[in-house]
Amino acid sequence: MAATKRTKPYELYYWPNIQGRGELVRLALEEAGAPYVDVARTPKSKGGGVEAILRALRGGLGGAMPFAPPVLRSPSDGVVVAHTAAVLAYLGPRVGLVPKGEASRLEVHQHQLTITDLFAEVHDTHHPLGTSLYYEDQKAAARKRAALFRKERMSKFLRYFERVLAANTASKQRWLVGKERTYVDLSLFQVIEGLSYAFPRALDELAPEIPRLLELHVRVASRPNLAEYLSSDRRIAFNEEGIFRRYPALDR
Amino acid sequence: MAATKRTKPYELYYWPNIQGRGELVRLALEEAGAPYVDVARTPKSKGGGVEAILRALRGGLGGAMPFAPPVLRSPSDGVVVAHTAAVLAYLGPRVGLVPKGEASRLEVHQHQLTITDLFAEVHDTHHPLGTSLYYEDQKAAARKRAALFRKERMSKFLRYFERVLAANTASKQRWLVGKERTYVDLSLFQVIEGLSYAFPRALDELAPEIPRLLELHVRVASRPNLAEYLSSDRRIAFNEEGIFRRYPALDR
Repeated sequence: MAATKRTKPYELYYWPNIQGRGELVRLALEEAGAPYVDVARTPKSKGGGVEAILRALRGGLGGAMPFAPPVLRSPSDGVVVAHTAAVLAYLGPRVGLVPKGEASRLEVHQHQLTITDLFAEVHDTHHPLGTSLYYEDQKAAARKRAALFRKERMSKFLRYFERVLAANTASKQRWLVGKERTYVDLSLFQVIEGLSYAFPRALDELAPEIPRLLELHVRVASRPNLAEYLSSDRRIAFNEEGIFRRYPALDR
Repeated sequence: MAATKRTKPYELYYWPNIQGRGELVRLALEEAGAPYVDVARTPKSKGGGVEAILRALRGGLGGAMPFAPPVLRSPSDGVVVAHTAAVLAYLGPRVGLVPKGEASRLEVHQHQLTITDLFAEVHDTHHPLGTSLYYEDQKAAARKRAALFRKERMSKFLRYFERVLAANTASKQRWLVGKERTYVDLSLFQVIEGLSYAFPRALDELAPEIPRLLELHVRVASRPNLAEYLSSDRRIAFNEEGIFRRYPALDR
């Protein structure tokens, strides 16, 4: 029975049609080879679908009431946790995606929170006035916000992470923290992947300044588990419902 | 020597003229009665002033490179940590502001991350297009964003926390998590305090729906250490440089 208990898969509750913030959890689970069920992508008749997310948001899983997905449930210990960065902080030590030692783990978490902020800013490039309005109804404001984002924020975030990579001399491979890849390296891969979808021109312009980040992006993508995942149908394609959207008007 | 080491004060690096995100760290340190130096508020000639923050941002304190303040340095163990929620996760167990047990601590942290998101949304009500523009240059967009924020977001966040308080039957006093106050209760106090400064009309309208939140606000404010702090000159007044700003045009 102990073995059965141990292999009970994690349950991820996240929108089934987008990468979004939940993708950062999916990447961690996939890289670690941890068994999980992407619950909302299973049939409604079997307890899946968007209904499963709504159930989670009503507190139906127990644990802390989530404000928004992603929510992770760990059947082996009953923990239910929401918020991408908190989910990753919980998962990290359990699936081998953090270094040993509290200080290093705090460092990984700190960087993850910077990525949380970056994601929110990317989202607001297409929704500067509010999430309840269509993009089409806030296009003029979106162009202004996106221009400032590309010029001042995206560049600031990427140069910052480039500096962090350059400063980490613990590994030849230059992961963000310590000697081995951690969950924040996977999230940083997703940042580059997403920006190259949403802002290809802006990213091209910055490319000469961020060689280490671009190398890390390739290195993460070619890890065996992730290479398999990224070419599978478990990986949802970028689309204009997610956080990273390709609206050419916002990239020039 | 051990005693000296133990009582070396924490060093907080945050903008000296605003409450901002750093205030959530100040509230935790004050409530806990933990010795700390608000470094940028000490004289430049003694290593203080805004220069101290810039030094921290250049990595001058060691530890993980911060992206932005607040940054906390703990001289007793050399840890340097940035990001409000990460600083609080670090401090919590050290100053007695979290429950025992990983699951409860994760729950406190999860709620803190929801407050992080709320703070970012409050900030963007006056800066929907970009932080580098003056409010006056994005006033029309700000009015639109603020209207949606008040109607859809502020109400959603506050009703959510009201539900969390109602669901916590572990204590008569109804703190957010467990039986005792934690750092997230202090942050939630600041949310109400800030919203009542920035959006007094909108908060008045919501008041009948959030009795527990308003009670918590009073209860936190009357804790002895915090009551002393809030009436001292260590508490910076709200102003139109911070996150919560009183622009009447955004509250009607």
